[in-house]
Amino acid sequence: MQKIQQYITLINQELADIKYQKEPKELYLPIKYSLELGGKRLRPALLLLANDLFGGKPEHALNAALAIEIFHNFTLVHDDIMDNAPLRRNHPTVYKKWNSNVAILSGDVMCIHAIRYLAKSNPSYLVEILDIFNTTAIEVCEGQQLDMNFEKLDTVTIDEYLNMIELKTAVLLAASLKIGAVLAHAKPEDANHVYEFGKNLGIAFQLMDDILDLYGDPKKFGKQIGGDVLANKKTYLLLKAKELANGELKKELDFCLNSSVLDKESKVKRITKIFDSLKIKQKAEAEMNLFYNTALAHLDSISVAQEKKQVFEDFAKALMNRES
Amino acid sequence: MQKIQQYITLINQELADIKYQKEPKELYLPIKYSLELGGKRLRPALLLLANDLFGGKPEHALNAALAIEIFHNFTLVHDDIMDNAPLRRNHPTVYKKWNSNVAILSGDVMCIHAIRYLAKSNPSYLVEILDIFNTTAIEVCEGQQLDMNFEKLDTVTIDEYLNMIELKTAVLLAASLKIGAVLAHAKPEDANHVYEFGKNLGIAFQLMDDILDLYGDPKKFGKQIGGDVLANKKTYLLLKAKELANGELKKELDFCLNSSVLDKESKVKRITKIFDSLKIKQKAEAEMNLFYNTALAHLDSISVAQEKKQVFEDFAKALMNRES
Repeated sequence: MQKIQQYITLINQELADIKYQKEPKELYLPIKYSLELGGKRLRPALLLLANDLFGGKPEHALNAALAIEIFHNFTLVHDDIMDNAPLRRNHPTVYKKWNSNVAILSGDVMCIHAIRYLAKSNPSYLVEILDIFNTTAIEVCEGQQLDMNFEKLDTVTIDEYLNMIELKTAVLLAASLKIGAVLAHAKPEDANHVYEFGKNLGIAFQLMDDILDLYGDPKKFGKQIGGDVLANKKTYLLLKAKELANGELKKELDFCLNSSVLDKESKVKRITKIFDSLKIKQKAEAEMNLFYNTALAHLDSISVAQEKKQVFEDFAKALMNRES
Repeated sequence: MQKIQQYITLINQELADIKYQKEPKELYLPIKYSLELGGKRLRPALLLLANDLFGGKPEHALNAALAIEIFHNFTLVHDDIMDNAPLRRNHPTVYKKWNSNVAILSGDVMCIHAIRYLAKSNPSYLVEILDIFNTTAIEVCEGQQLDMNFEKLDTVTIDEYLNMIELKTAVLLAASLKIGAVLAHAKPEDANHVYEFGKNLGIAFQLMDDILDLYGDPKKFGKQIGGDVLANKKTYLLLKAKELANGELKKELDFCLNSSVLDKESKVKRITKIFDSLKIKQKAEAEMNLFYNTALAHLDSISVAQEKKQVFEDFAKALMNRES
């Protein structure tokens, strides 16, 4: 895991070193602000790690790693406008600190900056990594649109939900790993395995997020426990409960979701009780483990010595055992 | 000029033939709508024409031409949100017909679609045309930001204004021509001349726009005469008048700009009188001709037989002699 830390440090240094054109400052200050807000830098670190797995050197993949991180932050800047989100990493979002117009336009520039970094990669692989990047970027936008659509729908199936989180969250993780692999001249089947590892791990990661929202340790979970429940957010837990609840349980669930008199504490308590009686947590964990194990199977299939792959297994394990 | 018409028809056919993924329709219908609203298709047609000038065939440059047109329409979709513009080409803008979120996200997808088309070009030229494209795309965003900034500023110099219209309008025309040239393996100095031809023609085109707003023939000019004047828009005409007006004339100009009692007709009449006494129209035409002649000088310097270049000269003349 030490290597990941080194890569994260490298990415943070490179992002801090970017020289932003000074004018017009309304365009460039928000970009600097957005990129220096922090974040786990998981995607670019995984890109560099995948590159290393197939014998590449960080300098071969650094521009692509920066491209992915800048693109990811571009989507956050635009998503925060669409979601009316006031805070991101405990700081005002770009659209709150400045305004929507600034967030739209500086986001647009970030998207182009991402392409610009990607285009600095080894030209021999440019067509291939651009193809992965463009396909993924469009999928991420589709995922965001589906997520917004779901808010207004009465019924969303589990399959539709899994498809949405795959697009919104998992494919960018997967693409980061694949681009790293391609830039180290990995065999196509290995590049696909590393993609599938990332995609399945990304879905498992999001399901873990859904579980932690309600079943996380309040002392260790960074946010309010039950935040999704209070917002009637269509997570895996709620969708599964809606699918399974019948008779009195269905009535009780509908009451909890629609009542305007129920206080917050009671709502979380009563919905937790419904979930517990339907064994929703266990079912979500089983689904999560399915994706987690699929991820590990793809990792196993990569034609590289086991000891080189250990860091990915450790990383996946750490993601699954996190408490926040 | 017949060739331009053929190219415009080709571009329109290709745009109509794009198969948009059906779901989520909130994302793809606005893209189709935006691209089918029409427009002169000047940029992609000029790209194909520049390609032809250096011996290229339309099929070598068609993807890049589509990329430029899709990118241009992406900027319009986002600009219309920022400018609160209700109409574009006599139809509701995307953000009015749907909403801002739809316009932001479908715009983002259009930007990626543009890159995707560009990436289908001959790989031998990909690094170079991506570089031209990315540099230009960022400049276009800078131009839009400057334009928005100018609305809130008291003083904008003529140089600042010319820089803004160069970025917002002229460089994309210039880049279209240069990309067409590069894809036909034009010599670097010829590619630069064709870029400078486009850039200077683009600035002249915008200055002509400014002049037509007040001095166009009301019967032929598509919009209300004096629209810019009524909106106190900082066009070349107004900025030049502010630069030159002194004493009583300055007082009269300030009164016209700030009065809340002046009716529309009187405002246009009195400002026209001020402009006339300062010979603003003649000065704007002189400035425009400077850029126009610089454009023609660059055209002249391109190392291609004169008869092949005639179509560009005819095109430039037509743009300068237009009445709307």
